[in-house]
Amino acid sequence: MELGGVGQARPGVGPDAGPGEGLGASGKVLVVAGTHGNERNAPWLLQGQGDRGGAIAASGLALVPLIGNPEAFAAGRRYGDRDLNRSFAAELLDDPNRQEAEVERARALLAAHGSEGAEPCLVAIDLHSTTAAMGNSLVVYGRRPADLALAAALQRDLGLPIYLHEADTRQTGFLVERWPCGLVIEVGPVPQGVLSAAVVLQSRLALEAALAALAAARRGSLAPPGQLVVHRHRLSLDLPRRADGSPTAVIHPQRQGRDWQPVGAGDPLFLGVDGRTLSYAPPPELGGETVWPVFINEAAYGEKGIAMSLTSRECWPVEPSWAAALQQLAAGLELAVD
Amino acid sequence: MELGGVGQARPGVGPDAGPGEGLGASGKVLVVAGTHGNERNAPWLLQGQGDRGGAIAASGLALVPLIGNPEAFAAGRRYGDRDLNRSFAAELLDDPNRQEAEVERARALLAAHGSEGAEPCLVAIDLHSTTAAMGNSLVVYGRRPADLALAAALQRDLGLPIYLHEADTRQTGFLVERWPCGLVIEVGPVPQGVLSAAVVLQSRLALEAALAALAAARRGSLAPPGQLVVHRHRLSLDLPRRADGSPTAVIHPQRQGRDWQPVGAGDPLFLGVDGRTLSYAPPPELGGETVWPVFINEAAYGEKGIAMSLTSRECWPVEPSWAAALQQLAAGLELAVD
Repeated sequence: MELGGVGQARPGVGPDAGPGEGLGASGKVLVVAGTHGNERNAPWLLQGQGDRGGAIAASGLALVPLIGNPEAFAAGRRYGDRDLNRSFAAELLDDPNRQEAEVERARALLAAHGSEGAEPCLVAIDLHSTTAAMGNSLVVYGRRPADLALAAALQRDLGLPIYLHEADTRQTGFLVERWPCGLVIEVGPVPQGVLSAAVVLQSRLALEAALAALAAARRGSLAPPGQLVVHRHRLSLDLPRRADGSPTAVIHPQRQGRDWQPVGAGDPLFLGVDGRTLSYAPPPELGGETVWPVFINEAAYGEKGIAMSLTSRECWPVEPSWAAALQQLAAGLELAVD
Repeated sequence: MELGGVGQARPGVGPDAGPGEGLGASGKVLVVAGTHGNERNAPWLLQGQGDRGGAIAASGLALVPLIGNPEAFAAGRRYGDRDLNRSFAAELLDDPNRQEAEVERARALLAAHGSEGAEPCLVAIDLHSTTAAMGNSLVVYGRRPADLALAAALQRDLGLPIYLHEADTRQTGFLVERWPCGLVIEVGPVPQGVLSAAVVLQSRLALEAALAALAAARRGSLAPPGQLVVHRHRLSLDLPRRADGSPTAVIHPQRQGRDWQPVGAGDPLFLGVDGRTLSYAPPPELGGETVWPVFINEAAYGEKGIAMSLTSRECWPVEPSWAAALQQLAAGLELAVD
């Protein structure tokens, strides 16, 4: 399987465009691994796919698997010039003066595999890993109905927790936002650069479930659950720092590894260099609400000033319009050619 | 505390050179953190020392704490041109054509803080972390009596397991080998780039115990234990690979995280991309011996072709000559100036 290239131009509709043929766009499913070059498990999964008897191919959907950032992957680094998964903002892509490697890569991926690209894809599944103890989880960006329907199906099938990332003006330009439907599968903890059989397996199970849900949606037989539990982004906390920027505390041992677990006022958050515990004092905008931290001590977020992100846990009724939106889109998904 | 510089020339003997004054060399204790720039916990320990009430300073010994590879540390990378902790081989240091950043750094460290440097150090403690589940452990290079005495004292006080690295012609040029006495404190698992309160604490406890043992040796009151348990290096195993170098297996889930635990013929080692378990088949030079793997799935060792190193567990009687050697050397250790 070719990975890392941006594919060859293959315009037009596949051999079986499904029930939606002629009604809307048609395309494939983009499956991206190695958007961050030091996350090795998803690339391993995609590269090993051919050897595993086609478990991922079982959905029957036409896939475009590729390495998001092949240069960074070869170098074992998260990125070269800038984070590829913050490089899909329109203001970057549309600015001819922005020529960083990752901005160019984002443009190339969209030209090749965007919904109007040479080999169009309608859905993007972006596979990530983290040093935080996120378990097998999903990240959804905003509230697009098709995304929520797909996430709800995955939560129904595998019980995956969902981090709903929204209203964060400092973190923008995520890859999946540029496709009509998409989400991130996020698995951890695993160190950067480490291959873990357990993380590969978790990634595979989530990817298979996502593709199965898309195939069901294509057949018009998506059966959404009654409710969706989301952890909605509220704000991110940085480590306490001195004026020169150096941190004066680390994640508290009682908080480390406890992503998705509730935190209230007075619970330990950080351990100061003076040995004192720094407890959670709710910021005014959150009042006395309980919060659920995620991405606790993710190695790559230090440079972004994020020690953890605080979320609110919310149970939403699943709107019928979500499944309708996903099924309308999925009707255009092409099937794989045997 | 200044970290990362190579100090200023301060030749001669300190204000209190101890009972060995006049009998041998005098000097300080070099404490190195960040020899690998993406290992952040030991630098945090040394940088935070001043804030912690001087727990490390309690030994009373004159210390030279520094960041081994400040450029790599600033960049969050293991190294720039080459692994600093493989750059202290004489054939590199003596070759004027070798001008990689790390070879130059090794020369500068020796010129400043070698036993005959501007601010001489007699002992080097090199603080590392690993993505492998090594716990709090020691690495000793070869069988220098003073090193073995120091390691025995640490094992007696804290129960630390010891990896005796020797007879490995592919891995040479370690920092501590260029000082009259020295060892590595190795703590894990922790991802690269992640600060962990638990790892900082383990590093601090081992460092304090090492300095306490050196102070006891300086007073002539080192009380060695009766025996030393070492895990002696035999050979390293790489992942199985295709002809093109790409791996065909990962560490088996039943082996991951199980450093220091015995392995016999037939025990699982790797999990193939075809889903099959690859079991341990003793290489001819080890026969049917039980082996104890260490550094299982250390992220940085992939490029070195090391998936794990196999050791033999041996109980050695502690030779009286070891403590004598350490006490003779430690007699020259200077005390800190208040």
